[in-house]
Amino acid sequence: MAWRFALMIDPAASDDARTDFDATFTEVDPSAPALTVGELSTQRGDGIFESIGVVDGHAQEVTAHLERLAHSARLCDLPAPHLPQWRAAVGRAAAHAGAGESVIKLILSRGVEHGPTPTAWVTVADAGDFTAARTDGIRVVTLDRGYRLDTPAQAPWLLLGAKTLSYAVNMAAIREAKRRGADDAVFTTSDGYVLEAPTASLILRRGDRFTTPAPNAGILHGTTQLSLFEHLEAQGHEVGYDTIPASDLATADAAWLVSSVRLAAPVTAVDGAPLPVDRDLTAAMNAYLLSPRD
Amino acid sequence: MAWRFALMIDPAASDDARTDFDATFTEVDPSAPALTVGELSTQRGDGIFESIGVVDGHAQEVTAHLERLAHSARLCDLPAPHLPQWRAAVGRAAAHAGAGESVIKLILSRGVEHGPTPTAWVTVADAGDFTAARTDGIRVVTLDRGYRLDTPAQAPWLLLGAKTLSYAVNMAAIREAKRRGADDAVFTTSDGYVLEAPTASLILRRGDRFTTPAPNAGILHGTTQLSLFEHLEAQGHEVGYDTIPASDLATADAAWLVSSVRLAAPVTAVDGAPLPVDRDLTAAMNAYLLSPRD
Repeated sequence: MAWRFALMIDPAASDDARTDFDATFTEVDPSAPALTVGELSTQRGDGIFESIGVVDGHAQEVTAHLERLAHSARLCDLPAPHLPQWRAAVGRAAAHAGAGESVIKLILSRGVEHGPTPTAWVTVADAGDFTAARTDGIRVVTLDRGYRLDTPAQAPWLLLGAKTLSYAVNMAAIREAKRRGADDAVFTTSDGYVLEAPTASLILRRGDRFTTPAPNAGILHGTTQLSLFEHLEAQGHEVGYDTIPASDLATADAAWLVSSVRLAAPVTAVDGAPLPVDRDLTAAMNAYLLSPRD
Repeated sequence: MAWRFALMIDPAASDDARTDFDATFTEVDPSAPALTVGELSTQRGDGIFESIGVVDGHAQEVTAHLERLAHSARLCDLPAPHLPQWRAAVGRAAAHAGAGESVIKLILSRGVEHGPTPTAWVTVADAGDFTAARTDGIRVVTLDRGYRLDTPAQAPWLLLGAKTLSYAVNMAAIREAKRRGADDAVFTTSDGYVLEAPTASLILRRGDRFTTPAPNAGILHGTTQLSLFEHLEAQGHEVGYDTIPASDLATADAAWLVSSVRLAAPVTAVDGAPLPVDRDLTAAMNAYLLSPRD
């Protein structure tokens, strides 16, 4: 992966009257030091982020990502991000993305310990090549996320619906999946329901109905899943949000992990048992996800 | 809090033959940029840390902290830290601590995304003034950590015994405690046992017996708690590790949150109900914890 561009944002310099944000941005070299050791993002994973897919310089679903950034900020008691400022930063970043697929990351950190304001930045990097995952698919294993389906509503301090920088568990789950000979994980609740993957949403198909776990169960509301559901509905398919027993995953007619950069990866096996793959439908999904979307 | 000193460490440059580590250290200005935006510590909270108390230039319990760093590295599949190199870095840092109380932080990050090696650094900062917490005490609230007592053993990918940089939940729990009019939180399991505080260990006293939750329940083995138990035992008290029902906290004869920098803070109230404070014993504990310890 090659870093292409990085921009520090001054969140304190935004205000409702401002329409030109260039003076609040500072371009930095992504391979040179830009953050101090006192950064709470680095000391405590204390901040939030978004990853936006970019295709041929077009940043996908920017509004949905900005709205989720604001949602995460509320859950984490961070100052509300000034969305026009962030949108302008995404625009600056997208101009550096070049042809092909890239990823724009937005990071809002609580700032430097005992410092005055949050710190914030945006990066652009070339995306990896996900052709194999999109066409040949991925094997998943189910891993217990440790909590019950009703825990997130009862314990908001667990931040289970926020996209925080504290992703060590998500990364450990992917390593555990690889140790088990799979490519990715699907988290389940301790009382036996499927949730999401460490960095993707889960979509199941049963007959002509597409379903995904309801986002009130402390999971992220996937921007790619949302976009894909709109598309599937427009194509005449039925879509819905459900409480899905983990046993439904292995008996689905098809399943995908969908995310902003890897897009739709068909699941070929669950805990070692094969799952059917609809290659034509998957190809159509990815063609849609690669088209310009707002 | 004033930053005093920061040192980048090159973990790849250590080897068993080396005894002089100065060439593997690079002093950096703690208030100037030192980390790149690609750092996985900052993007994913993907790394581990330790906070070491320093009193008049003496770093406390360094061996216990280095051993826990190595333990966290194992749980997180990070390369084993070369402990003589880290010990030398602590020595360099402690020389900059000055008189009074300070804190040395050790951070081992998975490194820059797709980069070759982990990154690592050590900082020194003045400690806050914890006189009020040590003498007048702190009010705590109990907060559900969301998992059962047996979850950590069954789901090691949740990293529940590792001191990772993914501390957003710990920080959110402290904010929730303050919203409830308290000073700190004590995590409980979903099946009703006490665990630890977000940044401290819990010690209860009942009669002449001191007890703390058994560290196999996915909690950190507190270095301060360990040191204090050795001291209490040497003074003729009984100490032990137990599975402690949450209801035992409110009915204890006394309770403390203990940690490397705040040291022993007596608990004055649990969920609003007062708890007795033994001021003389607490003062003796803190006098011991402020004495040079190895």
